[in-house]
Amino acid sequence: MCVYMHPYLIPQGTNPKLVCRKVEFQSLLMEAKMVVGVETVVPAEKSEVSVATRTPTTLFSNSVVDLARGDPILYEPYWKKMGDRCKMIISADELMSYFSNSVNLCWFLMSELDRAIRRLHHVVGNAVVDDDRFIIVGNGSTQIFHALLYALSSPDQPEPISVIAAAPFYSSYPMETEFLRSRLYKWAGDANRFDEDQAYIEVVTSPNNPDGSIRGTVVNREGGKCIHDLAYYWPQYTTITRKADHDVMLFTFSKATGHAGSRIGWAIVKDKAIASKMVTFIEVSSIGVSKESQLRASTILGVIADDCQNPKLKEVNFFKHGRRLMSNRWKKLREVVMKSNGVLSLPEYPQGYCKFTGKYTDSNPAFAWLRCKEGLNCEDVLREECGIMTRGGTSFGVEATYTRVSMLCSDAEFNFMLERLSAFNGTLNGN
Amino acid sequence: MCVYMHPYLIPQGTNPKLVCRKVEFQSLLMEAKMVVGVETVVPAEKSEVSVATRTPTTLFSNSVVDLARGDPILYEPYWKKMGDRCKMIISADELMSYFSNSVNLCWFLMSELDRAIRRLHHVVGNAVVDDDRFIIVGNGSTQIFHALLYALSSPDQPEPISVIAAAPFYSSYPMETEFLRSRLYKWAGDANRFDEDQAYIEVVTSPNNPDGSIRGTVVNREGGKCIHDLAYYWPQYTTITRKADHDVMLFTFSKATGHAGSRIGWAIVKDKAIASKMVTFIEVSSIGVSKESQLRASTILGVIADDCQNPKLKEVNFFKHGRRLMSNRWKKLREVVMKSNGVLSLPEYPQGYCKFTGKYTDSNPAFAWLRCKEGLNCEDVLREECGIMTRGGTSFGVEATYTRVSMLCSDAEFNFMLERLSAFNGTLNGN
Repeated sequence: MCVYMHPYLIPQGTNPKLVCRKVEFQSLLMEAKMVVGVETVVPAEKSEVSVATRTPTTLFSNSVVDLARGDPILYEPYWKKMGDRCKMIISADELMSYFSNSVNLCWFLMSELDRAIRRLHHVVGNAVVDDDRFIIVGNGSTQIFHALLYALSSPDQPEPISVIAAAPFYSSYPMETEFLRSRLYKWAGDANRFDEDQAYIEVVTSPNNPDGSIRGTVVNREGGKCIHDLAYYWPQYTTITRKADHDVMLFTFSKATGHAGSRIGWAIVKDKAIASKMVTFIEVSSIGVSKESQLRASTILGVIADDCQNPKLKEVNFFKHGRRLMSNRWKKLREVVMKSNGVLSLPEYPQGYCKFTGKYTDSNPAFAWLRCKEGLNCEDVLREECGIMTRGGTSFGVEATYTRVSMLCSDAEFNFMLERLSAFNGTLNGN
Repeated sequence: MCVYMHPYLIPQGTNPKLVCRKVEFQSLLMEAKMVVGVETVVPAEKSEVSVATRTPTTLFSNSVVDLARGDPILYEPYWKKMGDRCKMIISADELMSYFSNSVNLCWFLMSELDRAIRRLHHVVGNAVVDDDRFIIVGNGSTQIFHALLYALSSPDQPEPISVIAAAPFYSSYPMETEFLRSRLYKWAGDANRFDEDQAYIEVVTSPNNPDGSIRGTVVNREGGKCIHDLAYYWPQYTTITRKADHDVMLFTFSKATGHAGSRIGWAIVKDKAIASKMVTFIEVSSIGVSKESQLRASTILGVIADDCQNPKLKEVNFFKHGRRLMSNRWKKLREVVMKSNGVLSLPEYPQGYCKFTGKYTDSNPAFAWLRCKEGLNCEDVLREECGIMTRGGTSFGVEATYTRVSMLCSDAEFNFMLERLSAFNGTLNGN
């Protein structure tokens, strides 16, 4: 093994000995342990590297672990243990009609899901769901976001309304806003740099994706419109400090419980006209939302609420379990990052009093917002040195020194990441 | 009861005695029989009249029957009889990931559904599904239509591409094309009147919605793009004369089997680049499609294919059942319409040799394209005189003398319609 100063410890601007690094990295890979969990497959031209899928059972030492997307697979073992409690049985003649509830403004929303959503928010205390609020269901919170852009804009405006979000912002907002080249709205970037005297929609994600920070609006002009994306405002990720009470709030089954495959998102909306326009959007886009998914979501949200209200299950309900899981992962990740000699770092979050748990608790965001030493491209470093695919800072409107790492992966993937980062630390320290 | 000449038999231009009509109609309603099936509810400001929902069990004599939408509820009793054969059971830990098959171009399409779709088309013989064709799943064929507009247009074009369809065309195409004010595409109306020398996408629905006709492209310029919407190209509605083999073909679970609530549509696509752009659209719009619905669709399509391939079930498989049902309804409707003294009329369809049934068969479209005597607004007549809500011709780009009536309603609704039309005939004949 060649002896050298690791490139990430070399002062910025110095040219590292790339050949030596390459040999070192190959060697590191050869020594990596086999980890049970996930097998490598070659994707259909989606990427040049192999990605992990969920079905097979072996994660090979030369796998590239994909932590770029937030697939919430970590909750799977919990739900496996739930056995028959959440089992859903549907006969062939059920759920056939387009209509769910024609007396409701959101005619495709099943009453069961409406009730389950309101009940869970009530039990958790993370959002106001009084009877005068409208619940609108969508094909994931992604469709809900599109529905809101439509509902908050108007064809009568002379110019497309500006859609903004404070950087770092969720990486999909720009593409989602721009890809159909609508004359109704346009992506206008970082809310902190928005100084035009024009109509705007500010998207506030809190806790924020990617960096986990608690946020409020940045631009506060009269008549400004706002979408509050509260996908991660659940007790496993953050402290529940109050019932959120914004005009438009957005949640998703994917991040609340881990059921991303169901594509269920919802909005809580104060204004009837906005709710009504959202319904029109979802009607014209997809004539409603899968009833099978709605029924499953209502079952699972119902079981979670039951458990939260059962004093005997106080310490083992879904959110308590999720919190322990996330807290444990964050602890381990922080330990590894700490040993990187300052090459890598993570944000710190203040403790807060959580009304749901009744304790002062830490934040354990769904993503780790990893920062590399100045001048390094963090996404490249993780991919090239550790075989970990992440989503780099530029996708979120900030510098490439940052990258976003999913903390919602399987245990096997998470442990594999820890091993890779530990091995990387080893090379930094010349071991 | 006042004696009068019925207004619909009065020569055009003459002013009918409206007061007398009103009394007659009230009287007609009072005499109408109670029909078991569906109850009246008041919708949430969606319409001024009451509409029928599916859940309760009584259709009152003063109900307004909504046959404006094509909710395919007529197949429900068939699926009820199937009992446990199509029962789907899902545990809480299943179908959690966003991903279905990362080695597939359409990464959110479940392999089970891919196989079931190809198998059923193969068994029915209504579309070419060779291995080199891409299957793209969407949240209903509505989302598939949007995905196709995106895939067949380009941001590099100087002008939005014109989207056209021969009138009468599906009433939702204009709204679906226009509502987001995209710069990529624009609705340009009736294909028969399209003479601009510009790029275009022609939508060909065959059998056509609303009028059940078999169609081909109208504009045949080089470089013209085409979407073939084959939602109704199934043996219960029409003769299967050949395997359709167009560049882009669109189908939907709703109309194939009656499971509208599942929101599953699919496209069969020849060109990889177009398939890939469709995947991008569905990814950015909704990050895929409900897995619960995909699994259910694959189960149900699989059972239908099994039955079609079982010689013992040759006469009772789903399509044979559906054909008998539709054929019976059409026969009854034609009988009633024939007695209207020419005030109402229906299109005639040629017989054809159906390769699926191996017989010469009639067409039994999903919608009746009803025509009133010249000068009458057919939608208004049916609503005011018969309490039947339908969708008028102007929604489909043609005259108001036409209206579209769903033939996919429940037995109770269908029988109620027949009674109303018969009573209407009675008033025409002065009974």
